[in-house]
Amino acid sequence: MIAYYNGDYLPVEKISVSPFDRGFLFSDGVYEALRTYNKKLFMLQKHLDRLKYSLEQTGINFSEFDKLEEIIFTCAQKNNISQDFSTYIQITRGVSFPRTHHYNQQIKPNLFVYSTELKNRERELSEGVSVILERDVRWNRCDIKSISLLPNVMANQNAFIKGCYEAVFYRDNFITEGSHTNFFAIKDGKVITAPLSNFILNGVTRKIVFSICNENNIPIEEEYIPLTDLFNYEEFFLTGTTTEITPVINIDGNIIGNGQPGKLTKKIQKLFYDFVERF
Amino acid sequence: MIAYYNGDYLPVEKISVSPFDRGFLFSDGVYEALRTYNKKLFMLQKHLDRLKYSLEQTGINFSEFDKLEEIIFTCAQKNNISQDFSTYIQITRGVSFPRTHHYNQQIKPNLFVYSTELKNRERELSEGVSVILERDVRWNRCDIKSISLLPNVMANQNAFIKGCYEAVFYRDNFITEGSHTNFFAIKDGKVITAPLSNFILNGVTRKIVFSICNENNIPIEEEYIPLTDLFNYEEFFLTGTTTEITPVINIDGNIIGNGQPGKLTKKIQKLFYDFVERF
Repeated sequence: MIAYYNGDYLPVEKISVSPFDRGFLFSDGVYEALRTYNKKLFMLQKHLDRLKYSLEQTGINFSEFDKLEEIIFTCAQKNNISQDFSTYIQITRGVSFPRTHHYNQQIKPNLFVYSTELKNRERELSEGVSVILERDVRWNRCDIKSISLLPNVMANQNAFIKGCYEAVFYRDNFITEGSHTNFFAIKDGKVITAPLSNFILNGVTRKIVFSICNENNIPIEEEYIPLTDLFNYEEFFLTGTTTEITPVINIDGNIIGNGQPGKLTKKIQKLFYDFVERF
Repeated sequence: MIAYYNGDYLPVEKISVSPFDRGFLFSDGVYEALRTYNKKLFMLQKHLDRLKYSLEQTGINFSEFDKLEEIIFTCAQKNNISQDFSTYIQITRGVSFPRTHHYNQQIKPNLFVYSTELKNRERELSEGVSVILERDVRWNRCDIKSISLLPNVMANQNAFIKGCYEAVFYRDNFITEGSHTNFFAIKDGKVITAPLSNFILNGVTRKIVFSICNENNIPIEEEYIPLTDLFNYEEFFLTGTTTEITPVINIDGNIIGNGQPGKLTKKIQKLFYDFVERF
């Protein structure tokens, strides 16, 4: 695979990140993952807005947003990708020595980008997935899309070992989100997800679900979903850029409903696919 | 500088970390920092014990502990270091593609080690430092010495901007520790620091302070230090491998005592230097 690093397009094996990159030593960096539909970048501006937010919050001085779209498509082209692809963009604060927690504000950030073909794996998820529940031990700034992801890794690995797609976090008695997705529940025909706060990521697909529901007169609210009340909700789904709208049919070994994607979940899923086709 | 990476001793500029190293993408790694006194590695076993703990807790399969001492000294020797030095050891889970939060347990970890001369900077800290207070927004597994350090970076940078050495964290109403140090307070002749838990690192120097105090009949207890009661304590100090025993003489702009290191703090500091000289 050919990827982009700081101005060069190189085979990944030739890309050389310094061990003094602060991303490597301190997880001092942020990222975005986006994808194309019909070979067009989907929701580019929303991803760029969130990237800017993450950079501002962490004080990383990156400003070359205008270049990103070209880099993304060049990565795809250099790998002869002819169908839809996903793209990963990571910006770390840069290289500094000696290793100190604090940094010089003039440090030059490092940009890493790659694009990979999507294999329609995602549509298979349409059939529904199993998830586990995990205590949310992450930091209190999950609104920043940072590479400080060890707790997400540990939780998602626990899910993976149990044959599950995702770990859904609860903090105290409230569901926050998944390790790499947002989480939705449905009760009495109303779609519910955790309110935006420093405890969850402002997901782009989450935002689309709000638009779709509002346009189609499907009631939707930001409300806390109590862990202790979880199984009184009727349907569940996850959202994310590659997760799209993925029904949850099993939580911690408990079959949800009849073990099939819920009716309203399927409706929202269909509306989502209509939305991306129109895009 | 020559450093060690996965079997090779190379100029740092020639060390090539893959952008798919999970340390770079997910902060999926752990580390230790240690130092020599009188050219001998100080508390090596305690650092190795903690490294093993961090690896176990994160499920990283590293077992070549026996090699580390030789690597550390070879790094020093290849840089012609003839005096005391500090050493940094980082182990990441390894390289994997495609990028997924979960991982294959057979992945081979990557080991990075370097040694740098100590410049007696630390002894200058003996005169006392200023610190700021910061809300502790870190994850709930600060007992793991992981590279998931973005919150520590952000807090320490806030301290640095204000000309301070350290940011001291409080969680709810209790002081936990510094961004890269443990924190101690003294009241009525008794030394107090936060109890070991998942909210603080089990510091090697912290442990030494307990030994020193116990040997010298200085009362010492693990107790929570309430933020709201902080300024009723009389003396404060920080501990850490390179921080050693560093008096705190100013907290958030408030001069502590007469602005000089406290009497008992200086006694503990002297006992610490005696301890390392005997080592």
